[in-house]
Amino acid sequence: MNFLDKIGKKWSEGKYVSIGLDPVVEKLPNGITGFFEFNKRIIDATHDLVLAYKPNTAFYEAEGVEGISELKKTIDYINQNYPETVVILDAKRADIGNTNDGYVKFAFDYLGADAITVHPYLGQEALEPFLKRKDKGVFVLCRTSNPGAGEFQDLDIAGSHLYEKVAFQVARKWNGYGNAALVVGATYPLELQKIRKITDDIPILIPGIGAQGGDLEKTVNASKKNFIISSSRGIIFASNESDFDKASRKETEKLSEDILKYIK
Amino acid sequence: MNFLDKIGKKWSEGKYVSIGLDPVVEKLPNGITGFFEFNKRIIDATHDLVLAYKPNTAFYEAEGVEGISELKKTIDYINQNYPETVVILDAKRADIGNTNDGYVKFAFDYLGADAITVHPYLGQEALEPFLKRKDKGVFVLCRTSNPGAGEFQDLDIAGSHLYEKVAFQVARKWNGYGNAALVVGATYPLELQKIRKITDDIPILIPGIGAQGGDLEKTVNASKKNFIISSSRGIIFASNESDFDKASRKETEKLSEDILKYIK
Repeated sequence: MNFLDKIGKKWSEGKYVSIGLDPVVEKLPNGITGFFEFNKRIIDATHDLVLAYKPNTAFYEAEGVEGISELKKTIDYINQNYPETVVILDAKRADIGNTNDGYVKFAFDYLGADAITVHPYLGQEALEPFLKRKDKGVFVLCRTSNPGAGEFQDLDIAGSHLYEKVAFQVARKWNGYGNAALVVGATYPLELQKIRKITDDIPILIPGIGAQGGDLEKTVNASKKNFIISSSRGIIFASNESDFDKASRKETEKLSEDILKYIK
Repeated sequence: MNFLDKIGKKWSEGKYVSIGLDPVVEKLPNGITGFFEFNKRIIDATHDLVLAYKPNTAFYEAEGVEGISELKKTIDYINQNYPETVVILDAKRADIGNTNDGYVKFAFDYLGADAITVHPYLGQEALEPFLKRKDKGVFVLCRTSNPGAGEFQDLDIAGSHLYEKVAFQVARKWNGYGNAALVVGATYPLELQKIRKITDDIPILIPGIGAQGGDLEKTVNASKKNFIISSSRGIIFASNESDFDKASRKETEKLSEDILKYIK
């Protein structure tokens, strides 16, 4: 099943949550030694509630070859056991055209992800190797969740902002295959509102809820529809005890219910 | 030895060339089966001529865990045998602050690279985990070598261009530790000239010579000093025969001599 079919089916079921599978050795619960073992427990406990899992490559690369191996095991496990669930590889890649073939092979063919996050700076022409994989989703960073995001993203471009220009280009020019999408941080609900006006119903991945302090009600109101709310630390590190998976399910349920409550 | 000392010593010896170690399975010479075996032959044949080796992670990730393992072997080999040579990990990473810790650990601690390339879009605050590693170099993408680079990079910001704003911010604001640098494609010599005027003597990494068609004389004239000229395919795939390492040395010598000829 391709990315758009998967995501559409989840939305039709009222599912909007993505869990950021971002393990850190020092934070693993007592008795858990590997990233895959940790992720598997979270996945088994939450799969029926979520739209997507979003592993961020930085946390796996930190552990070198072993980390990448645990990442592959994690995505293989999801694809084999819960194939209806979307896997977004939060890799924030982007190189010049033919070099991106390597990242495309890594993300989609080797790891088996359904979608990837990418930087916009090199433009559509460079990102074509990602975009032309029509069965996969390409989430372009638009307005990021970090406090210093505005340094370049808020620059004035003929009366609007760089992040609005990125939103416009991606939604109106890059989306020939219908698989382009955006990343907008929940920490900037006013910007999210502007972006939604520019982009009609393009999918928007929204990190920044939970530990980063994004306001859920404002986020849901601003993004209106076709959004994915991603939470990582607030869910996966909800407990350090042996029943951490149950705690992660509880947090996921709460987030899902709050989203449905705020959807008009 | 830290990044700045290494690079300064190489420039003082009249060395400006970086070789892009970007292997591709289908292009390996007859009889060569692994990326490390291939890279080792190139490195042994060229180490006395070069300033840096620049492996691009995309080519290694394409082969999954095995590729990353070959990348680690390659950098370990350079560090053990030619420790005066700079290793620039062309990874084009950038995430929000604490997530970058994973990439810092991967690039500098696990792989042992001296420098990394990063995207500017998230701003200085996000990239602090890279910048605060004072012993390492941080090359920020400024004007990339691809044909479609201008889509965002040429946007007008109060009478100048986005790429000039990036150059200004990195050289004047981000460079508190003296380890910030830029990436500018050889395919845009006029832009390179403008960037050099804005940035005084900040190091500039210049890909795009060779297969991508950048003009060497214009590039050297525009960048003036403190530059690194990187060539990949033109050197590493100079020959498909068993003496491909000799062919790569010949191309490296030619490039080095041409650079010295053009330096005023």
